Amino acid sequence: MKRLFDIDPWKVKTSTFQPEDKRLQESLTSIGNGYMGMRGNFEEGYSGDTHEGTYLAGVWYPDKTRVGWWKNGYPDYFGKVINAMNIIQVGITVDGHQVDLAKDTFRDFYLESDMKTGVLTRRFVWTSEDKATEIQFVFTRFLSIVDKEMAVIQVKAEVLKGQPEISLKPGLDNQVHNEDANYEEMFWEQVSENVAPASVTVRTIKNNFGIEQFTVTGLMLNDVTGLELSGSEVANLQAFETYTGRVSEGDTVVLTKYVAMVTSRDVEPAEQEAKATALAEAAKAKGFEKMLAENVGAWEVRWQKADVKIVGDDEAQQGLRFNLYGLFSTYYGEDDRLNVGPKGFTGEKYGGATYWDTEAFIVPMYLAVADPEVTRNLLQYRHNQLDNAYVNAGKQGLAGALYPMVTFTGIECHNEWEITFMEIHRNAAITHAIYNYTKYTGDESYRVNDGLDVLVGTARFWADRVHYSKHAGKYMMHGVTGPNEYENNVNNNFHTNRMAAWSLAYTLETLKGADDSKVKELAVTEEEKEKWQAVIDNMYYPYDEELGVYVQHDTFLDKDLMPVSDLDASDLPLNQNWSWDKILRSPFIKQADVLQSIYYLRDQFTLEEKERNFDFYEPMTVHESSLSPSIHAIIAAELGREEKAVELYARTARLDLDNYNNDTEDGLHITSMSGAWLSIVEGFAGMYVTDEMLTFKPFLPKQWEAYDFKINYRGRLVDVHVDKEGVRLTIEEGESMEVKLFDEIVMISDTITKALQ
Amino acid sequence: MKRLFDIDPWKVKTSTFQPEDKRLQESLTSIGNGYMGMRGNFEEGYSGDTHEGTYLAGVWYPDKTRVGWWKNGYPDYFGKVINAMNIIQVGITVDGHQVDLAKDTFRDFYLESDMKTGVLTRRFVWTSEDKATEIQFVFTRFLSIVDKEMAVIQVKAEVLKGQPEISLKPGLDNQVHNEDANYEEMFWEQVSENVAPASVTVRTIKNNFGIEQFTVTGLMLNDVTGLELSGSEVANLQAFETYTGRVSEGDTVVLTKYVAMVTSRDVEPAEQEAKATALAEAAKAKGFEKMLAENVGAWEVRWQKADVKIVGDDEAQQGLRFNLYGLFSTYYGEDDRLNVGPKGFTGEKYGGATYWDTEAFIVPMYLAVADPEVTRNLLQYRHNQLDNAYVNAGKQGLAGALYPMVTFTGIECHNEWEITFMEIHRNAAITHAIYNYTKYTGDESYRVNDGLDVLVGTARFWADRVHYSKHAGKYMMHGVTGPNEYENNVNNNFHTNRMAAWSLAYTLETLKGADDSKVKELAVTEEEKEKWQAVIDNMYYPYDEELGVYVQHDTFLDKDLMPVSDLDASDLPLNQNWSWDKILRSPFIKQADVLQSIYYLRDQFTLEEKERNFDFYEPMTVHESSLSPSIHAIIAAELGREEKAVELYARTARLDLDNYNNDTEDGLHITSMSGAWLSIVEGFAGMYVTDEMLTFKPFLPKQWEAYDFKINYRGRLVDVHVDKEGVRLTIEEGESMEVKLFDEIVMISDTITKALQ
Repeated sequence: MKRLFDIDPWKVKTSTFQPEDKRLQESLTSIGNGYMGMRGNFEEGYSGDTHEGTYLAGVWYPDKTRVGWWKNGYPDYFGKVINAMNIIQVGITVDGHQVDLAKDTFRDFYLESDMKTGVLTRRFVWTSEDKATEIQFVFTRFLSIVDKEMAVIQVKAEVLKGQPEISLKPGLDNQVHNEDANYEEMFWEQVSENVAPASVTVRTIKNNFGIEQFTVTGLMLNDVTGLELSGSEVANLQAFETYTGRVSEGDTVVLTKYVAMVTSRDVEPAEQEAKATALAEAAKAKGFEKMLAENVGAWEVRWQKADVKIVGDDEAQQGLRFNLYGLFSTYYGEDDRLNVGPKGFTGEKYGGATYWDTEAFIVPMYLAVADPEVTRNLLQYRHNQLDNAYVNAGKQGLAGALYPMVTFTGIECHNEWEITFMEIHRNAAITHAIYNYTKYTGDESYRVNDGLDVLVGTARFWADRVHYSKHAGKYMMHGVTGPNEYENNVNNNFHTNRMAAWSLAYTLETLKGADDSKVKELAVTEEEKEKWQAVIDNMYYPYDEELGVYVQHDTFLDKDLMPVSDLDASDLPLNQNWSWDKILRSPFIKQADVLQSIYYLRDQFTLEEKERNFDFYEPMTVHESSLSPSIHAIIAAELGREEKAVELYARTARLDLDNYNNDTEDGLHITSMSGAWLSIVEGFAGMYVTDEMLTFKPFLPKQWEAYDFKINYRGRLVDVHVDKEGVRLTIEEGESMEVKLFDEIVMISDTITKALQ
Repeated sequence: MKRLFDIDPWKVKTSTFQPEDKRLQESLTSIGNGYMGMRGNFEEGYSGDTHEGTYLAGVWYPDKTRVGWWKNGYPDYFGKVINAMNIIQVGITVDGHQVDLAKDTFRDFYLESDMKTGVLTRRFVWTSEDKATEIQFVFTRFLSIVDKEMAVIQVKAEVLKGQPEISLKPGLDNQVHNEDANYEEMFWEQVSENVAPASVTVRTIKNNFGIEQFTVTGLMLNDVTGLELSGSEVANLQAFETYTGRVSEGDTVVLTKYVAMVTSRDVEPAEQEAKATALAEAAKAKGFEKMLAENVGAWEVRWQKADVKIVGDDEAQQGLRFNLYGLFSTYYGEDDRLNVGPKGFTGEKYGGATYWDTEAFIVPMYLAVADPEVTRNLLQYRHNQLDNAYVNAGKQGLAGALYPMVTFTGIECHNEWEITFMEIHRNAAITHAIYNYTKYTGDESYRVNDGLDVLVGTARFWADRVHYSKHAGKYMMHGVTGPNEYENNVNNNFHTNRMAAWSLAYTLETLKGADDSKVKELAVTEEEKEKWQAVIDNMYYPYDEELGVYVQHDTFLDKDLMPVSDLDASDLPLNQNWSWDKILRSPFIKQADVLQSIYYLRDQFTLEEKERNFDFYEPMTVHESSLSPSIHAIIAAELGREEKAVELYARTARLDLDNYNNDTEDGLHITSMSGAWLSIVEGFAGMYVTDEMLTFKPFLPKQWEAYDFKINYRGRLVDVHVDKEGVRLTIEEGESMEVKLFDEIVMISDTITKALQ
């Protein structure tokens, strides 16, 4: 654990600069607007250890992969989010000396990421070597969520002492590379550069996989007071302007840089320059203050719908808002071609843009904190990629649709066979999200139309992927990897078998409610339906009578079973200390596996079953996936294990802020950021939707005085407040409704209060 | 199946040149002398599709590997046999035109690889475009097995028509690359080149894995009659001489090229040039005829010990000798730092030099066809690498010694985790070879000394690799891959469990017979021995009572079992037509798995058990490993299934000559070349050593009139002749002895004959 920033309910801030943790600082001060984003790099440049990263949503490259020995059915490429044009650069020289915090003398350093407003600011007082000159620099940066193509960067320099000649050199620089490139390739090639207005147009290099080449134009307009334009230069993939002037003591110079970024995802290459010019000019005309005010206002609206307040624990408060902020900066549903990448705009580790994490961990939260359209777009994304899911299954010689583990287009682009064609439970996460969306919103329209295409496609996959074991007289699934990736190529993983059967049943049920025309279009035959029903009725589930638990997979109980508590502290985390061989053969579980089914299918297990399985598996779980603790916290809460729930919650709430896994320098764990929210809302507050009704069973963690969150539910904005006195539900917007509170049905018209139980 | 060469008992020859199969021709006409070897490339060069390959035993490079996602315990590099200096080049120009069979007109083409003498010859009559000139070229090439560093290449040009100016340009060319290089790197760097005598010295490039850089010097002396030296040139990694002259009709010019190759494996770089000069001068002094005669004589001695005659089936005869020739060209035991590479000197597919194939398939044959020292050196090789086997196990966090799947040094250098730390049955192949050597030779000295180091090291590995399942009350081994690589990461593979227990037992037994000093040196504790005994006594073996068969692994019977005969022909071979996912989940078996144990431990299974397991597994076996058919043929023969045995034999005998697997263009299947010999000797003739006695149960395949082979057994050379009359055993050298013939003990002093049963 390492904490770089101060505790503050709304801000990530610090007054100390720690060069040894520069990359971590950069990750934690990343900003994004769903269209683009960047790490917290320094505008003036930095000669020490740093990871410069700017990323454009949906702009990627299929990097040639390498596997031990390629075999039929392996993916051809490993898709990468690629490092894009650096647009924040404003080089600074004072009397010819280049300002560089890695080398220079400075004081009063302050860095702040304001989660409430989405603004990143930084300041410091710089001192020349001879101490004759002192300048206070203030940097302000934001990416507009109103004008998504616009980045605004402002640099103020106030001379406190001396009369220096100051040069500011704003630039656009696409000479960037990916640290994780497989062949140290540059993924960009030059198209053109312009002097006035300064712009750079680049294109991703050719590839052999039929993936489009992306063309991107960055264009900047600079508004400068106190300095004169002294030069412009363009180079291969770069464009710069230089503003210079002698500045008197007490005077302040200001540079405001308006950068427009357009990509061929939205704008034809031929029109990009004109479009970018128009955008930048419009932004410059609005001016810094108006652009800022609009952005702050837009963020305020988001927080009104989504904020969670924790009274009496600012650490938890900060952690929770940091997670919501990270998610909203990554994705807010404006573009159904996009999804929630594992690192968002904060780093480039992990290929691809889309994992099953979205459906399993993000959807349940977005349903409650944003408009239904946001989640609907996430579902639509999968429907758009259905054809390619059929291609993935076909590559394995299987019928139906297999959604990818990692993808941009729907085509699998991860590179481990034990994951790509084995960790197929992901298919069920996608159908379960349809179930979740429908259950929460009451909107059946997706399920019975586009959703049904997805349901039938995945059902056809499951029906072909199972095999009938004459020996056992059951349908089985061999060669799978469950959510617990610390085992792979196992047989009859309970979770995969259970969710496959559930998906088939949900599909059959959905078919009943669909229009004949739709059913006809899908041409599901009676034979198919019979096969699906046969699989549902005769699916094999490993179960141990004696223990009364579902067995993770066929031979799990033969392992040398022991709790994590028997391990030496030095063994943990296993993935850093043990060989893969030892991990695979050990009984230790990376993340919820059997318990993932129990979380997904909450109604279908008795409390006693949940208790037995939780008590059996959780002690063997190392929670080395950031996705693990929240699911366990929610089940623990349901079981009334309040302390356990809070303990597990603590592992997700500040995962990145406190760098628990010692890997946040690579970027933030975006897709697990919903974990803390889920722990509080589905766990502590026990929120759940059943029988068309919102239900709550709240408790208050001892450490807290109160917590308060808002949820959007079927046209209403509901505030849930829990404190020592009890729980208070308030409908802030929308009509009154019945809810289930501690299993009792109550009507809320305005506000109701109830003591905790 | 494709057959390029004529049927001939001793020769691989053809009178037709088939450019479309150039690579296949090159593989099939490779030559080698255990020290170096090369594919059947053309001396004058060839501008069409070709794979030029020259290889030096033990000279390799650790190529950077790439895996999907590196994890602890994965190998760092993928060791490659690297393409070395091309020493056969003799460029030819006639009146300024470069002779090139890819473009020119020629007739009377003839190519012959004489397996009896080890000589490769080629001739053709070349015609100029204007038809005014005709020249007959004759090429003779051999690698001396007497002077191992020497290659001799002779080119004769007889002018049949015209009076052309002929230039011959012998050269040394190290501007070569590996087609399988992971990063298209050149593995060689320049050291120096000399004009007279023409030589090139090169060094393998640096690597980051602490592997030595090899320095190699090639030096040539040319003896030319009828042409004058007209020039010499050296370039980066190259050296050439040119001999030119006008030649009258009827005249013949002759160039004899003596090339000495020395490497830093034997000679310090500083001394290489002097050493190479001395070697080449000595060879040149001997002259072509003497060098040739010595080489032919040495091959004759090898054949006297090892030849197998098949009367009435020249195809089988040729196939069998081709296999012996390929093996002897690759390895004849002179250097215990070397082993039998999977492609020998015939190609560069597959990394590494040493596989478990050597112990499992080569050792049993070398024991009978060569002096005991040859096999002993193969055992010594593993002892030399024992320390690194401990390193391999340590990398997995395990005790003891884990021999590598693929290696040069003993360090694992393959790149698939499912093989490297899972296909551990290889450890037992190595201990079983000690058992085989001891049983066959009666020489206990290796087993109780160096061999015991290996036995104890592997025993310590097995004892740590198993785990005790409280649930089952048995020792188990999870996460293994058996010989059947069409499944991996399985639990309780019968073969692995069985051979592990056998190895432990053999080690305990050996410890009893060893000197106290040796035992003390190994410091095997009582606790260790008790643990080993406990594992032997309580090892879990999957067995099905109903079927009466050992189960390949825990869940094999749950598969959708079906025989290969149920497949559509278009599905085969599976590895070219099915996805890896489908193959892994299918019941189809690549090569003997349960049956491999039955082959290894012939005495420990009843005939009924063998029959039940053979009848259960063989029908599901696709034999897509070249190692598969021979083991099945031997067991079929033991079961009296003569037709089945012959059918399986046919799949190994001419695997390369008839290009059965359509991959011989990449090189020959060296390590499976013993398969045909094993099928005849251990299969058809039923040769086996038990109770210190040679035993035979021969039968004669219907298609044959007779077969005859020689074996070396405890100081004797025994000829075994089987024909329609019966079997005749003759002791050609050495003392008389008792043998078991059809279960009857008989004494052979000179010759005995017996009817077949």
